Amino acid sequence: MLSTSPSLDALIAEFARLPGIGRKTAQRLALHVLRRPREEAEQMAAALLSVKDNVRSCSLCCNITEDDPCAICCSDKRTHSVVCVVEESNDVFAIERSNEYRGLYHVLGGRLSPLEGIGPDDLHIRELLDRTNGGVEEIILAMNPNVEGEATTLYLSRLLKPMGLRITRIARGIPMGSDLEFTDAATISRAFEGRIAL
Amino acid sequence: MLSTSPSLDALIAEFARLPGIGRKTAQRLALHVLRRPREEAEQMAAALLSVKDNVRSCSLCCNITEDDPCAICCSDKRTHSVVCVVEESNDVFAIERSNEYRGLYHVLGGRLSPLEGIGPDDLHIRELLDRTNGGVEEIILAMNPNVEGEATTLYLSRLLKPMGLRITRIARGIPMGSDLEFTDAATISRAFEGRIAL
Repeated sequence: MLSTSPSLDALIAEFARLPGIGRKTAQRLALHVLRRPREEAEQMAAALLSVKDNVRSCSLCCNITEDDPCAICCSDKRTHSVVCVVEESNDVFAIERSNEYRGLYHVLGGRLSPLEGIGPDDLHIRELLDRTNGGVEEIILAMNPNVEGEATTLYLSRLLKPMGLRITRIARGIPMGSDLEFTDAATISRAFEGRIAL
Repeated sequence: MLSTSPSLDALIAEFARLPGIGRKTAQRLALHVLRRPREEAEQMAAALLSVKDNVRSCSLCCNITEDDPCAICCSDKRTHSVVCVVEESNDVFAIERSNEYRGLYHVLGGRLSPLEGIGPDDLHIRELLDRTNGGVEEIILAMNPNVEGEATTLYLSRLLKPMGLRITRIARGIPMGSDLEFTDAATISRAFEGRIAL
């Protein structure tokens, strides 16, 4: 309650609605907007609406896109015989940043979670199965390494195995730059399981 | 570079321009906006523009306001003979939250900082002097307790003393809920200096 400006109060409330933004941070952001030129506020307002108007889901990979199918699904520089299955769109961004993977993606839109009531029908699994007919040779499962991610991996591998595709999962192990001493036991155990011949 | 959606890239860039918001947080916020209904994006866009259209500076206290003079300067429930001088508008919010102070405010818009090239002419000191004629009896200096805040306090007290007003400063001391053991030496020293008779 600042009470000296309802507009500022409203903007603080809007910022505070964003995830991870508390009341004090929202106040700092709103005061920042107040100090900057009007054009910056206009640009941010336009960007907010543009995202809602232009962004949609790719009908092939279910990733966010503006053109359907998306740029990755359409690209002739990518290997169309390999599909990497991830939970969310931001996993695609993370993988793209590594500049390692050159295949296609499939975004499930979540992971199996009985506790949260998320079953196979709530994920884009039907769309994944539809894609397995057209020239796909390998499916890489890249779920997050936690209980629900593991369960999703297991479920999908059982579902996809009978189709005669190569099903792989990304390696779990010691992260680069870290220290064995400070790595948890579960990670070390997975690193040993996944050791490779030199 | 997500490259699957320029609109989303633009929104991420807008969020990343805010203070304390890094690239990854900006991405998380933008994806949140994407998932929420269009009305929420519209409300935030409207709030951004409304702040720029409606908020201005009170001609008396220099605090942010929509009506001039501001609600605090106009209020007949506040003590008009006491003026608390603060650096920024968010200091007013912080003091108002404590529900302790019932006088008026004066927002300097910064503090003296030779290193950043901020001198007396860059602050709303002229406006403060203009107010000292009309029935003001006490001026409370509430600068932040750091080198620049102290310098500003000293400068203002020397400037205001000759006017025959009561000039006070808020107490520096051990913060409530903290522990003497973990309080820095400078704070303890100020707490002793500022001790009061019981």
